[in-house]
Amino acid sequence: MTEPAFPAAADTPETRPAVRLQKGRSNRLRRGGPWVFSNEIEMTAEAKALPPGSLVTLVDAGDEKLGVATFNAHSLIAARVVDRDWRTTVDSRVVLDRLRRARDLRDRLFDRPFYRLVHSEADGLPGLIVDRFGDVVTVQANTAGMERLTPAVLEALDELLAPAAVVLRNDAPSRGLEGLPLGQTVVKGVIDGPVAVEENGLTYLADVTTGQKTGWFYDQRPNRAFVAGLARGRRAIDVYSYAGGFGLACAAAGATEVVLVDRAERALALATDAAARNGFADRVTTVQGEAFAEMARLAAAGDRFGVVVADPPAFAKSKKDQAQAAKGYRKMARLAAALVEPGGVLLCGSCSHHMPLEMFQEEVSRGIAQADRTGRLLHTGFAGPDHPVHPALPETAYLKTLTFQLD
Amino acid sequence: MTEPAFPAAADTPETRPAVRLQKGRSNRLRRGGPWVFSNEIEMTAEAKALPPGSLVTLVDAGDEKLGVATFNAHSLIAARVVDRDWRTTVDSRVVLDRLRRARDLRDRLFDRPFYRLVHSEADGLPGLIVDRFGDVVTVQANTAGMERLTPAVLEALDELLAPAAVVLRNDAPSRGLEGLPLGQTVVKGVIDGPVAVEENGLTYLADVTTGQKTGWFYDQRPNRAFVAGLARGRRAIDVYSYAGGFGLACAAAGATEVVLVDRAERALALATDAAARNGFADRVTTVQGEAFAEMARLAAAGDRFGVVVADPPAFAKSKKDQAQAAKGYRKMARLAAALVEPGGVLLCGSCSHHMPLEMFQEEVSRGIAQADRTGRLLHTGFAGPDHPVHPALPETAYLKTLTFQLD
Repeated sequence: MTEPAFPAAADTPETRPAVRLQKGRSNRLRRGGPWVFSNEIEMTAEAKALPPGSLVTLVDAGDEKLGVATFNAHSLIAARVVDRDWRTTVDSRVVLDRLRRARDLRDRLFDRPFYRLVHSEADGLPGLIVDRFGDVVTVQANTAGMERLTPAVLEALDELLAPAAVVLRNDAPSRGLEGLPLGQTVVKGVIDGPVAVEENGLTYLADVTTGQKTGWFYDQRPNRAFVAGLARGRRAIDVYSYAGGFGLACAAAGATEVVLVDRAERALALATDAAARNGFADRVTTVQGEAFAEMARLAAAGDRFGVVVADPPAFAKSKKDQAQAAKGYRKMARLAAALVEPGGVLLCGSCSHHMPLEMFQEEVSRGIAQADRTGRLLHTGFAGPDHPVHPALPETAYLKTLTFQLD
Repeated sequence: MTEPAFPAAADTPETRPAVRLQKGRSNRLRRGGPWVFSNEIEMTAEAKALPPGSLVTLVDAGDEKLGVATFNAHSLIAARVVDRDWRTTVDSRVVLDRLRRARDLRDRLFDRPFYRLVHSEADGLPGLIVDRFGDVVTVQANTAGMERLTPAVLEALDELLAPAAVVLRNDAPSRGLEGLPLGQTVVKGVIDGPVAVEENGLTYLADVTTGQKTGWFYDQRPNRAFVAGLARGRRAIDVYSYAGGFGLACAAAGATEVVLVDRAERALALATDAAARNGFADRVTTVQGEAFAEMARLAAAGDRFGVVVADPPAFAKSKKDQAQAAKGYRKMARLAAALVEPGGVLLCGSCSHHMPLEMFQEEVSRGIAQADRTGRLLHTGFAGPDHPVHPALPETAYLKTLTFQLD
């Protein structure tokens, strides 16, 4: 295996460095919150000098021990609680226990071993993302703390799943905030082409080494199932299709014809191959192009669909983008609504953390009204249950979809 | 058929009375909003004198015609738009057209004719609720306007569905706000016992003449399906079970044992009969009692379950109840969490309009923390798609459920 950027350090609770919270700053932690912000910490010279990602014991102003956390003095979220009992030794045994619980939950939720196996704080492994594609696993360490624990994670994954191949997808831009290098490495086995993804009863193809994020967006699984349930006997269009997540689900559910629109030729090629593998290549066509321009072109040509899906990459990458993103979603909804035949359905999605559900709903509704269309909201969807949310971090629920029927 | 409280009046757009909005108050209407509040209307002597529920043409301060609405000068929501084109004659033909669209949508959503057929504003029939149980239909007119249109609704229902029996469930307390009498009447056919309800592949029994609301809560269908998917091989408890909606779904999905808790003996009897009809009566037991007391008693006795459902009637009946209701939901979550075995799941529901999702999530999370439990939010659910939401009335989405896995 290739070494990660930082070596793992053995953890001993008794000699672990302590980091102190400022007076009056421990309430959120005591109520179960897993994060401590840098401005809540006594940022002493000793604290600042701790190597990024060090395991620390958090103590309050009165020296009461509050738990063990990973610590990065240079990050806005300076401490992330790994265990509320400071006496826990954070090692591959603890990681294995959490992986096992995470796996047991997913195996109860899904028939087949294709899911997000670990979703960061909610699965007790802050900063860690693990996606499973049968016997292929992708791992993302998004914090310095998880970077240090990566060897323990890989060891535990081997023990739990004995995967044939493991890819470190350490290319998330958020790693920059933690001072971590970007890159991706196959640390076990060989990836010699697209990987099959079984979801909602069909097979997709994902590029787990160079595709977006970890190669596949499992988060939309329930929303794909919902909209596919309305697609039988209808034409469908999947705008921002990537590798065909929504569109191929519609084809599998009996759509008469499916058009996939995306800028990425490589993603469309994967979708085409997957359509062939599922036996409905004759009903799937692809258009390589920019979404807004293609929607406007198709609308002007009088093209109409019974199912229209518009699920773009995040328009709001940060809080300051919010107003601009709101306009973008409104315009997207307006252009997409124009493609919906009377009685057809429109799904609009947003994976922007910085676009709250209420605002998204208002902007999409306005866009629909601007297209001079009326209708009703049938379904509000979030990420699937393999993307759980930490109860104290409701703001980390980033994904929302709205499905309307239009008159 | 029995006559409804008010007779239907023939509608002629050209001679229909006009009601004028105050200056600067027409924007929401122009953007698609279906409601005009009484303080937005020029409440002249003529307007006040209109019989409650009259059809009116809404005009703005400059006499521009904005649509046709039902009008009740004595209600906070004084006007409810039926059609944005004032020239539309509101008669049984228009009602039939809307019923047909509503039916077509539901028949696409569900395999069997068991669903909410009409959900008020979102289906273009403000104030009207129609639930369908195969060839039995229940009708609720919650506004004076819909009371006047009831004969047209009944006529259209006959033409569309030719139901064997129709029940007017005009016993919703909200009718009082519209000055309407309360009562329920079988206006067609005979109801000689519980009615079968097919949902999520099993059969329930509903009392459509005297049961709560329209006799069955179709709104929880997708949330029942979600939690049932986690019940196989586990003990389940359904607190506030009513006629067994969640609990029997768990039994059908393979729960080893299901306990139903409700105050209503009649509802529990329906659940027991339904369990027998589905062939799993041996796995279902009932406890007649008060939910909080029963949960505390079971917890004290060391009883634990793999699935715990707590879906009570609305704790917040009005805005002023909100703080008290918040405490109630927190306590409910605390008591329910104590019953969850390690790794098990907890669903908490709220059907209170006056309990926003964010507040509900916070209170339930606090209750779980007070029970000294940690976990993760797997699923946030709303009412099913046969309960659509008008895009301009997001605040009418009353139902939310949160499903957690607890450690």
